[in-house]
Amino acid sequence: MQVDYLKLKTFVTQIFQSIGCSEKDAALAADVLVSADLRGIDSHGVARLAGYVRLYDNGRLNPTPNISIIHQTPSTALIDGDRGLGLVVAPFAMEVAMEKANNVGTGWVAVQNSNHFGIAGYHAMQALPKQMIGWAMTHAAPLVTPTFSKEKLLGTNPIAIAIPANKQPAFVADFASTAVAYGKLEILQRKGLNTPDGWVQDKNGEPCNDAFAIKNGGALLPLGGDREHGSHKGYALGAMVDILSGVLSGANFGPWVPPFATAGFMSAGDSVGNGTGHFLGAMRVDAFRPIDAFLSDMDKWIERFKSAEAVEGQKVLVPGDPERLLEAERMKDGIPLLEPVVKDLETLGERFAIALNL
Amino acid sequence: MQVDYLKLKTFVTQIFQSIGCSEKDAALAADVLVSADLRGIDSHGVARLAGYVRLYDNGRLNPTPNISIIHQTPSTALIDGDRGLGLVVAPFAMEVAMEKANNVGTGWVAVQNSNHFGIAGYHAMQALPKQMIGWAMTHAAPLVTPTFSKEKLLGTNPIAIAIPANKQPAFVADFASTAVAYGKLEILQRKGLNTPDGWVQDKNGEPCNDAFAIKNGGALLPLGGDREHGSHKGYALGAMVDILSGVLSGANFGPWVPPFATAGFMSAGDSVGNGTGHFLGAMRVDAFRPIDAFLSDMDKWIERFKSAEAVEGQKVLVPGDPERLLEAERMKDGIPLLEPVVKDLETLGERFAIALNL
Repeated sequence: MQVDYLKLKTFVTQIFQSIGCSEKDAALAADVLVSADLRGIDSHGVARLAGYVRLYDNGRLNPTPNISIIHQTPSTALIDGDRGLGLVVAPFAMEVAMEKANNVGTGWVAVQNSNHFGIAGYHAMQALPKQMIGWAMTHAAPLVTPTFSKEKLLGTNPIAIAIPANKQPAFVADFASTAVAYGKLEILQRKGLNTPDGWVQDKNGEPCNDAFAIKNGGALLPLGGDREHGSHKGYALGAMVDILSGVLSGANFGPWVPPFATAGFMSAGDSVGNGTGHFLGAMRVDAFRPIDAFLSDMDKWIERFKSAEAVEGQKVLVPGDPERLLEAERMKDGIPLLEPVVKDLETLGERFAIALNL
Repeated sequence: MQVDYLKLKTFVTQIFQSIGCSEKDAALAADVLVSADLRGIDSHGVARLAGYVRLYDNGRLNPTPNISIIHQTPSTALIDGDRGLGLVVAPFAMEVAMEKANNVGTGWVAVQNSNHFGIAGYHAMQALPKQMIGWAMTHAAPLVTPTFSKEKLLGTNPIAIAIPANKQPAFVADFASTAVAYGKLEILQRKGLNTPDGWVQDKNGEPCNDAFAIKNGGALLPLGGDREHGSHKGYALGAMVDILSGVLSGANFGPWVPPFATAGFMSAGDSVGNGTGHFLGAMRVDAFRPIDAFLSDMDKWIERFKSAEAVEGQKVLVPGDPERLLEAERMKDGIPLLEPVVKDLETLGERFAIALNL
């Protein structure tokens, strides 16, 4: 089913209002969520709307949070999300980071007491219109084993960075610190297929090809796959994201990060901090170098990489290219939604008496 | 041959003095270089000393640089390394970053007109005694292909982050954004062995197992290896390091990054900026959270990961563990040097009439 993104956004806004969010917060949360669908990261889009509502049902979500700054310096802040939607808390934090960058060159914000913030790239990209470099990272519930571990201690912990250019579209990297995202396993599960080598391990820590590995006590592998191929680097990257998002913020960390409502996987249960955490940042380009010189060099960088001689039948891409192309296409032609996702939206519409006119 | 690290450091200091460095700069550069040997990153230690001297011989190294701040804001600076030793320029930049962090919470420094800065971890770790989180990254001459590219456009571009703890030793991640470091290929070359899958590609961009792949027109692969295993993420990480080190600083970038004297591989030749660049940062922990709470949570994080149930016959490590253990061992028992490295040092000693008493 191909649906109009504006109609989808209106529906999502109304659902968030139905659980008590203000019109402004609901519209912002809908914008973040639908941007995931537009950019092709379908696992993080409206497919999760029912999950956010379940968070609310479980008393874990405050629809009218008092998001506040706990502590700050000219270039940093610690923010309490007050159990608000991560989709609203993270944009607030990013605004604080950008204001600080305006004042002193850069701004860095650790967030506690939040929950799932959607796609990291959305938040990093908020810096682009201000000619800043945006950073966003978040930890997530443990599905990933450190190198040589049988236990799952890290989430897929993504990191995003958005860097402006002039004539060329911006450089936008947004990637999990694992070999693959969990969504890729779900696709194989539906098709009844095995995974390639290097994606998952079984409950004994042995390499396996089971698309249901996590449900069977196994785990996703860090980027790199195994030690011989640099999994200790993917592990280090995921650990860095966890420490900045969790330990520096006073949120939970490692195996204690709470599961997202829809995930169905449990974390350690007890708590070592406040909710889920994020880490966001903004750097004013002209705090380093004149903006025109930088933007012109970014164009040169991007043009050189795009025009690199490619292997037979392929094309060299710049991070952000596939998502941007898909976004333009889906804004025009609509967002393809899977049957079960439409069913979920219908159920939500019925519950809150909101028409799903897609 | 097992050599005493203090004697080695004295010799290296004297060599740097012989090419015109001040006693202070020479001692600092020696400290950075020998710390690589102590920590087991032998490819970045005294094995490169002859290379730095060759840089000097080629007129690319200024032994008495006027390292200066070109531009700054309260939390940022752009630094001109004046073609000095990266081993001296980077510590200068890190001092600036830490001073800014002292004043406004964080400090971020882009560096142009430098050259090879040794191991990234050394610079990041300077932040630890000040209870700051240290960051260091640098680009390097192009040996790595972006995903789907036949052309080498990126260096092994490492990223390091050092995070203090209390009773536990600090968390120190320091890793290249490639599947393996070039040094691993050299080891296989000496042994006449092939590489495992996923390390290198040939000149047509096809997967191969040739330990001499780079010499034969091939390339190192980004972390992840191939697209199916997330090489686009390793590529994005390497690209991020290149842009922050090169484009943000006004240094060269991508294929234009100058080769290190010993590398023997050529970059694009022409120039799009000033020398080699780095990017360093420092974040005061208490700019986010009270230091005691943070350090105690870091201990908890580290203890939990160290005690994770491991796969048969293995142990779960925390980033920085292997290097720290090796450092303690080599400080006590000496640094093992390969025959050709000792020969290189002897040649340098003869040239500058400095006794190599190891």
